[in-house]
Amino acid sequence: MTGAGTDRTRPEITGGPAIILVRPQLAVNIGMCARAMANFGLSDLRLVNPREGWPRTGALRKGAYAAAAGAVHLLEGAKLYDTLEEAVADLSFVWATTARERGQGKRILPPGVAMAETAQADAAGERRGIMYGPERTGLDNDEIAIADALITFPVNPAYASLNLAQAVLLTGYEWFRASQGEVLPFAQVERSPPASREMVLSFFDYFENALEENGFFRPEGKRPVMQRNLRNIFHRMGMTEQDVRTLRGAIVRLVEGPRKEAQTRKRKRAPKIDVDKPEE
Amino acid sequence: MTGAGTDRTRPEITGGPAIILVRPQLAVNIGMCARAMANFGLSDLRLVNPREGWPRTGALRKGAYAAAAGAVHLLEGAKLYDTLEEAVADLSFVWATTARERGQGKRILPPGVAMAETAQADAAGERRGIMYGPERTGLDNDEIAIADALITFPVNPAYASLNLAQAVLLTGYEWFRASQGEVLPFAQVERSPPASREMVLSFFDYFENALEENGFFRPEGKRPVMQRNLRNIFHRMGMTEQDVRTLRGAIVRLVEGPRKEAQTRKRKRAPKIDVDKPEE
Repeated sequence: MTGAGTDRTRPEITGGPAIILVRPQLAVNIGMCARAMANFGLSDLRLVNPREGWPRTGALRKGAYAAAAGAVHLLEGAKLYDTLEEAVADLSFVWATTARERGQGKRILPPGVAMAETAQADAAGERRGIMYGPERTGLDNDEIAIADALITFPVNPAYASLNLAQAVLLTGYEWFRASQGEVLPFAQVERSPPASREMVLSFFDYFENALEENGFFRPEGKRPVMQRNLRNIFHRMGMTEQDVRTLRGAIVRLVEGPRKEAQTRKRKRAPKIDVDKPEE
Repeated sequence: MTGAGTDRTRPEITGGPAIILVRPQLAVNIGMCARAMANFGLSDLRLVNPREGWPRTGALRKGAYAAAAGAVHLLEGAKLYDTLEEAVADLSFVWATTARERGQGKRILPPGVAMAETAQADAAGERRGIMYGPERTGLDNDEIAIADALITFPVNPAYASLNLAQAVLLTGYEWFRASQGEVLPFAQVERSPPASREMVLSFFDYFENALEENGFFRPEGKRPVMQRNLRNIFHRMGMTEQDVRTLRGAIVRLVEGPRKEAQTRKRKRAPKIDVDKPEE
């Protein structure tokens, strides 16, 4: 039903949330996702551990590039990661798409609402991403645990299976509607920028180490679920950089006890981030 | 990103506008359209003069049926017409999808608005249809002339080409939202009820006392703002009862140090709330 196709004389719309394909199975599907992204002005494609490898050369290239149609520039510019943590490190908020309930107590939104929220955040300079799991299985529970909130699609419950490119298409469509037509005239004023995922993960490291040394994770078998629940609690609040500093400072005090005035300038276990300045 | 797939135990949603594929070129695309229809509860598939013929037998059947995935029943039930006029004879209103202006002075609506209108008409017993042209060229002007109004998709003007199944998917998605009220296939499951304000304030008391004893609130003059910021961080996450117990348990461990196994049953500073049970 097309009839228009690629028109290089018209301004290219770029930006928007990062599209993160986690362990995608087929190179041709990556190409189809690139095409769907181009339709809706998305340009930041990230691949985590694609099963068939990186489709820039050889036999894979042919299928992926054909499926991408005029959007090969997105494949050329895609970034490849070994781990999901690296792929989301520079983002401050990550959506996970899922077709079923995951029992992690996170917000679940339809793509229209999620992309309206994302457009407002984007206009305020915040970087967000959307994760999509492998074609057959979807994201696993540890991958879902990294997400701040979930997106699911309003579909016929008797036939709920969407393929990977269709899921990217529907989120892209809602992103385009929200960002090009439904942006509010002003955004929420943040006193502190949203914390990068790297900062949040470093905070978790410190916090969980302190808890570990104090024997919190008992019995041992419960550790994974306890750790995930704890992380989910903090993800849900969408921490700013200042929030992370404040919480980290609070935990440092609990762990180290009262600050000795004389030692202020030469602490033994100085935290990696300055925690002394409370927010004004 | 699927993971749910076809579930025949759930009620099948049927009805909605007729999906009319006019001179479709590839049998495999017809299969993909059937799949997109099933996702969104559409069941009336009509084919006008498909170029490869009717894909019920032979080599065409294989590709079309594979692309339809679990939606082969839609292919089986599809109706075949020699002319567009016959295909729309029983309908009282027909939309034409197009990616470009057609100079025929008809209303042009985005799919969301068009499907909201269609859902109202459908509820009133009116039968409507949506026409999609061939993959490469779209509908010709005589076919557009048959339509009551046009649907076009909000897309990146530099890359406006949607394939046939994507166009069906987006109209289907908007049909489902309009007719079903954006019902998601599942909702957030709360394993724990939201914490009462009393419970939250008791947690703050405990937390802030522990911080006070450890000299966190320095300098003294900053105490009110530090306390307020800390409370705001926790308020923002909308804690459940289980969240409060988990966080309180974490702080108890940081304050009291490793749990002595012998003392488990007779702690001196037993917290007011049971914190030993991690969330399952």
